[in-house]
This record gives sequence, structure tokens and C-alpha cells, in this order.
Amino acid sequence: MTQTPLTTTVQVGQLPPGTREHLTSPVTQAALRIQNNIAAGSREYLGTHGFMEMMPPLIGPVTDPGCRGAKQVDVDYYGHKYKVMTSVILYKQASLLAFDKIFYLAPNVRLEPMETATTGRHLVEFHQLDVEVADASREEILDLAQGLLRHIVTYVLRESKADLALLGRDPDAIAALLREPFERMTHQAAVTRLQDLRHVQSADAEIDWEGERLISEQTDRPFFIVDYPKGSRGFTDGESATEPGVLRNFDLIASDGFGELASGGERTYEYRRLIERMRETGENPAKYAWYLDLAKEGLRPSAGFGLGVERVTRYLAGLGAVWQANAYPKLPGIASP
Amino acid sequence: MTQTPLTTTVQVGQLPPGTREHLTSPVTQAALRIQNNIAAGSREYLGTHGFMEMMPPLIGPVTDPGCRGAKQVDVDYYGHKYKVMTSVILYKQASLLAFDKIFYLAPNVRLEPMETATTGRHLVEFHQLDVEVADASREEILDLAQGLLRHIVTYVLRESKADLALLGRDPDAIAALLREPFERMTHQAAVTRLQDLRHVQSADAEIDWEGERLISEQTDRPFFIVDYPKGSRGFTDGESATEPGVLRNFDLIASDGFGELASGGERTYEYRRLIERMRETGENPAKYAWYLDLAKEGLRPSAGFGLGVERVTRYLAGLGAVWQANAYPKLPGIASP
Repeated sequence: MTQTPLTTTVQVGQLPPGTREHLTSPVTQAALRIQNNIAAGSREYLGTHGFMEMMPPLIGPVTDPGCRGAKQVDVDYYGHKYKVMTSVILYKQASLLAFDKIFYLAPNVRLEPMETATTGRHLVEFHQLDVEVADASREEILDLAQGLLRHIVTYVLRESKADLALLGRDPDAIAALLREPFERMTHQAAVTRLQDLRHVQSADAEIDWEGERLISEQTDRPFFIVDYPKGSRGFTDGESATEPGVLRNFDLIASDGFGELASGGERTYEYRRLIERMRETGENPAKYAWYLDLAKEGLRPSAGFGLGVERVTRYLAGLGAVWQANAYPKLPGIASP
Repeated sequence: MTQTPLTTTVQVGQLPPGTREHLTSPVTQAALRIQNNIAAGSREYLGTHGFMEMMPPLIGPVTDPGCRGAKQVDVDYYGHKYKVMTSVILYKQASLLAFDKIFYLAPNVRLEPMETATTGRHLVEFHQLDVEVADASREEILDLAQGLLRHIVTYVLRESKADLALLGRDPDAIAALLREPFERMTHQAAVTRLQDLRHVQSADAEIDWEGERLISEQTDRPFFIVDYPKGSRGFTDGESATEPGVLRNFDLIASDGFGELASGGERTYEYRRLIERMRETGENPAKYAWYLDLAKEGLRPSAGFGLGVERVTRYLAGLGAVWQANAYPKLPGIASP
């Protein structure tokens, strides 16, 4: 006897219901149980690969400068202007002074523009699995991200069978990513592919969400876009030593139109380069005193990535909107718990 | 060949060193490794007891009202005045609409008074294991808190042997708590005991830290103080139906002078009682609209507790100050990452 699966699609622009309706929805509950297994699978994989989990900071004098379009949240900290974390990137780099391989499962807040409230893809408050490895190259980090995501999928396919069935998610749709390595294409190749699809995409800029969706729809497993041009990202993304203007970074894009899951790459870590890149990206070095003080005496070279927990949950559970993967979804401009 | 243990004592009023020195200190590193095992042991225990882990919120329209002496951090959320979480208590109660047993491992910020910067016991930013069970009585929650702490200790004694040795922490000092159940004394009995020790303690008030330390020094394992008087706590602590003025709550106090580890109890959950208790404690019900809306249609009766992660780490690792158990310690009034 097969049960009729729950409806996981949402209308274009559909907003979450009230708190009671959202929390008592079997879709929300199944999504959160799957999310719990995503976190458990991540911890299992990273734990067996020698990673230390760190407790996330919540506020600090500065935070991730690389969140274009989104505003940071200011707080008054005993008369000092502090920020709520948009990501723990600066703390990840510093933490490698204590341990070689670390991760955070951290809550972040980004005040996204109001017009993104109805995209089904934006949350103001979200959670990120933030991983960093000292002395790692981008290629090693691509392998790690692929290995981690595959382990998560294996874990969820094993432990969340009933919930996937409840949500009508075909296990084969995600099992596909266990079969072959994820494709790695350069930003330039992605731009060419998009132009072939008659999508307007500049060769010097970030690939927009619509473009990501277009490429993403043509594949049955996630893939990496590497080598973004310098102007498209913040100062923490490391620039190639041999190809000036090319960043040693990547995005991990889900298949079937689900879009970006993770971003990362090698980091800028040398004091002199950090100052240069801050100036190039319009950041004031004086704001980053604690971080630059560490860099002056030496930060470690590293690479890493941040994986969006709600986005991965949406992808694996096959949900229509990312807010279905958060117990208390906060959408841009909308006052809610 | 035995290694000389590291020094874990700190001077009275000693502040943390700079970020590099703190992160490269073998004491910090050992403390954080032990903390990692405390988190892993907690997840193992709660996972096998049917708990769902939830991803913590970071900001919201209101937060825990029960943090006397400490100020909340305001943020501007698209023109609405929001708060950074001082604890996730309100979200814990709401989350029981989705699951019967839940926990959060959540970062919190409380702007403690400046004069507490040198106590060695206060952190502005800290982490809390926040547990809640629907339809549970205080007595069931005392058993759960005891079972959890004992499991954490068993886990740490097994997995952190080398680090305990490195820090010169005698395993027997914490193994003592595995032998007998934790004593349960009423607030009234604690007051009498303190008065016998010639400590000035009012029968109607919170037991001050010095008092906690005094009682705590006379035992070799943690103990519970239950039944605090109503005036001493916020509106979320449930009042006894049979003994008006007595709260169905508890504190868990560590042995050997380490002081409070956890606080909890049964919750106020009925709409009418919440309004009454808000008024009694000087809180404006209008601020709590989303939470009271849920209560009006019905919150579930529950009990739970919050366990301070840095405090438990300090206790098990035998550290002189709580800031030794945090990678980026923020002390009251002091600007630091």
C-alpha cells in the first residue's frame, strides 16, 4: 500500500504560512528531519576526516565582506559598532592557528533586498556548514566538497527513506550524484555555454541566478564552476599567482535547477595582498584591525567552503522553496519570528 | 615517562591574551577538543533518546526575558526593532508544536555589566545546549539533565583521556559524579545551609554566585537546587499549582566551587498565565505578539533546561576561567573579536 506523497511545490512568490501552520505541517517536519540527517552525515564525514568542530561566533567587529546586495546588521557592543555574522569566514582563517582542519555549523543573517522575498530562494537568517583546511589547494577542496556532499546523500538515502517517500522525492534523482565525479567547468566555459543558450551573461561578472538555473537544469548531478573573475567576489577569495584577475575559487551548483549549494576556494592570507585586495574591493582596512593584526604576523594559507544547510535540504528533499527547510523562516522585509 | 601537565589556573581578574596567543595555547586547544567531545557526547545521548536537533535562530522580535543584570542587543530588522538571542527559550516552546523532544546548540549574547569582566565566570557571547520536552514534569527533566551530564562525563573520560592528562585534570574528580544520584535540595534548604555557613542570603531571592560557590565547595558531585521563589526568575519559569509563589524550576550546580552549569524547569505555557506572569515581572505582553498568538491557540506544557557549554567545559577540564573554554572570548565591556 503506497501512501500519496505530500505536496512540496509552492506557487511562484508564495510566502510561508503562520508559525503554527508551518511547524505543524508534515512537509516542514519531514524537511527538518532530513536536515537533521544532513547535519549528522556532515559531522560523521568531517569527524572521520580529522576535522574539529568549533562553536560559532554570533557578533564581531567585522564580518564577511563578500555578500553583494545584502546588508549587514549593526549592533552596539559596549559603545563599539559590531556586526552580526554574515558568515564566519574571518574566524575560519584565524581558527587554523589552533587546528589544521576545522568546521563551523553557523547561523548567519544577511539583510537581502526586499524584492527577493518572493523568489523562494532567499532567507535572511540561514545556516551554513563552513569548512576550512590549512595548506589545502582549491583542487583538494573540490574533492572534499564532492566527498562531503556524496556522504551526505548516502546518509540521507539510508536514514531518511521514509521522509523522502513522504515528500515524493525520487531517491534516484539524488542517487545520480553518487555515480560519477562532479563536472568542473571554468567560469569562462559557463559563460560560453550560457551565451550559446542565448542568455545574456558578461564574461567579467558573477553568473546570475537565472544563468545558474539554466546550466543547472541541463545536468543530473551537481557541478563546479571554478575561476571566477576578480571583480565578482570579495577580498577573501584568493587570486591566482599565475593568472592575474582569475580567482582560485568555486561555486557548487545543484542539478535540476536548484542552483548554488556552496561557495569557496583558496583564500587571500598574506598581509600585503589582503590590504591590496581590500582597497580594490572598496573595503577599509582599518575596520579589519584584529584580522589584519593576525595576518601581519602570519595567517596560514588555506582553502575551504560554505555549504548552505537550507539549500542542501531543499535540494535533497526536493522542496519548492528554501523557506520550507527552516523552522522559523525570515524572508526579506517581512517581520516574523 | 609522565609529562608535566600544563598550567590551567589563572590569576584573579586575569584577562585573555591576544587572539594569536589564545588560539596557539595548548590549554585552549585541549579545552576546545574536550568541548568538541562534550558536544558529541550530548548529541549521542539526546539522539538515542529520540530528540530532534534544530538549527538555532540568531535574531528575533523578542528573546529570553529572564537574564537579570544583562542587557539585550538591539538590531534594526527592516525597520523593526529585533533582538539578538539571549537564549532560545521562546523558540523551544514553539518547536514542540513540531516535535515532542527537541534541542538546540545555540550561540547567545548577553551584555553583562562591565564589572563582571574580571570574575573569570562571565562571557558576553557563549553557547548553550538548550533542551525541551513536551508534557514532561520537572522531576523527569532532573533525571534527563543528570543522565545527560553523566553521559557527557563518560564520553569525555573515554575520548579525552590525553587532554585531561595534559591539563592535569584528575579523572577521579569528575568520575565521582557517576557514582551516586545528584542530591536535590530545595531553595529553602540551600538558604538554611548558607545561613548556617554565616553567608547572608535572603529566602526570597536568587542565590548569589558566592553562595553557590560556598555550597558547591562542600560536595564532590553536582547537585540540584529546586523550587526557587517566584520573584527570582522570569515569566517562562512555571509556578507550582499547589504552592503559589514557588517555581517548578531548578539550577544544576557543579561541585568543587565551579558554580552553576544549567537552569531549567517546567514552563508557563497557558495564555492567561503568561499574561499574568508577564505583568508580574514587568514585561510588556504587546512585545511578545508572535509567542502569545501561539499560546492563545495552545502551546504544549513542557519542561527543559539550558546547559552552558563553556561552563561544562571549564568544569570537566578543570579550568581557572570560563574564557579558556571559548576560541574568541568576549568579556563584558572589552572590544575583541
